[in-house]
Amino acid sequence: MNTLSPSQLLEALQWRYATKVFDPQKKIPAATWEALSQSLVLSPSSYGLQPYRILVVGNATTRQQLLPHSWGQRQVVDASHLLVFAARTSMTEAEIDAFVNRIAEVRGIAISALADYRGMMIGDVVQGPRSAVAGEWAARQAYIALGNLLTSAALLGVDACPMEGLIPQEYDKVLGLSGTGYVTVVAATLGYRMAADKYASLPKVRFPVSHLIKSV
Amino acid sequence: MNTLSPSQLLEALQWRYATKVFDPQKKIPAATWEALSQSLVLSPSSYGLQPYRILVVGNATTRQQLLPHSWGQRQVVDASHLLVFAARTSMTEAEIDAFVNRIAEVRGIAISALADYRGMMIGDVVQGPRSAVAGEWAARQAYIALGNLLTSAALLGVDACPMEGLIPQEYDKVLGLSGTGYVTVVAATLGYRMAADKYASLPKVRFPVSHLIKSV
Repeated sequence: MNTLSPSQLLEALQWRYATKVFDPQKKIPAATWEALSQSLVLSPSSYGLQPYRILVVGNATTRQQLLPHSWGQRQVVDASHLLVFAARTSMTEAEIDAFVNRIAEVRGIAISALADYRGMMIGDVVQGPRSAVAGEWAARQAYIALGNLLTSAALLGVDACPMEGLIPQEYDKVLGLSGTGYVTVVAATLGYRMAADKYASLPKVRFPVSHLIKSV
Repeated sequence: MNTLSPSQLLEALQWRYATKVFDPQKKIPAATWEALSQSLVLSPSSYGLQPYRILVVGNATTRQQLLPHSWGQRQVVDASHLLVFAARTSMTEAEIDAFVNRIAEVRGIAISALADYRGMMIGDVVQGPRSAVAGEWAARQAYIALGNLLTSAALLGVDACPMEGLIPQEYDKVLGLSGTGYVTVVAATLGYRMAADKYASLPKVRFPVSHLIKSV
């Protein structure tokens, strides 16, 4: 595999910032969007269950409806792409079976050979210790995908803004998620910064490595 | 900025997998580790508050003590690096002030000029709507860093395994986190795969893009 140099990686991570002003005229090219959507598909999750869905909100009217539920942040309407991460509120045997079927399909093995693995997952996230916190467990998996997406976008030269400043219940209503078993947990906007976005050139504020990372 | 091609990005994301067997002899070179630790520092978080710490467990005895609290998964002792993500259980004015001071320092502005921003953060995560779920909010921020780390590692050719299969309370005891305001939320091991790790060559199981991503 062709690897990146440390400096190439850090250049991209330094370049990225939470974009406040997107150029509404600049759209992500199809091949780039295809790679970003594949980066979401390839994102790792607990057991591989991918207990979330990602809604790509293309409809301009819908995006306008989401604006007041996003504290008026214009990225929701101006960015090339608006992605809403919706996570499971609980896990049932149906989700486990869908995944088991998928393993059998991709790896060409019998479903019966996966009975123990199926039982282990059910004994954890459906009936066991994680079932009581399955919604939060699912949200955390979606956040792995969010982190992966933000880094992937930066490497492709695509600007992004992760957005927690939204009202999940209102998003759920507008997006028709109510009653589906999925709820909005976070959004991300993707596209290209406006040259006038003053936030792009502000020095990045982070705690120093000595504060954040401890050797023990 | 030098950007990656879509195929370069996807090659790295296809190459990565949750490594089960690490080569205990192969250590991450200093420059590579430096870049990975910087990728953690540069990871975005809500308001930029970075409400987590990352413990890098180098001590062999400590790693051995963590093994039984990790369902015996050998990555904990065999991988070059073991990282434990510890998130705040709640947020106080002290954390907000540390961040406000850091903004003032990095951007060379007066702390008084940040009073409104300080008030907004306190009115949200310390006293407001997010204060009741601050522990979970903080854990989610740590998961953004985890997602970013896993992608960054793959791009540098470093193998990784995210690990939720651990007993947080026992980790807290071993790592001296009890009573610090931080609790273990997830771990990640980093290093290099053994050629014999059969999981490396198994076809990756993911739901198809049409299942995971919906256009609305």
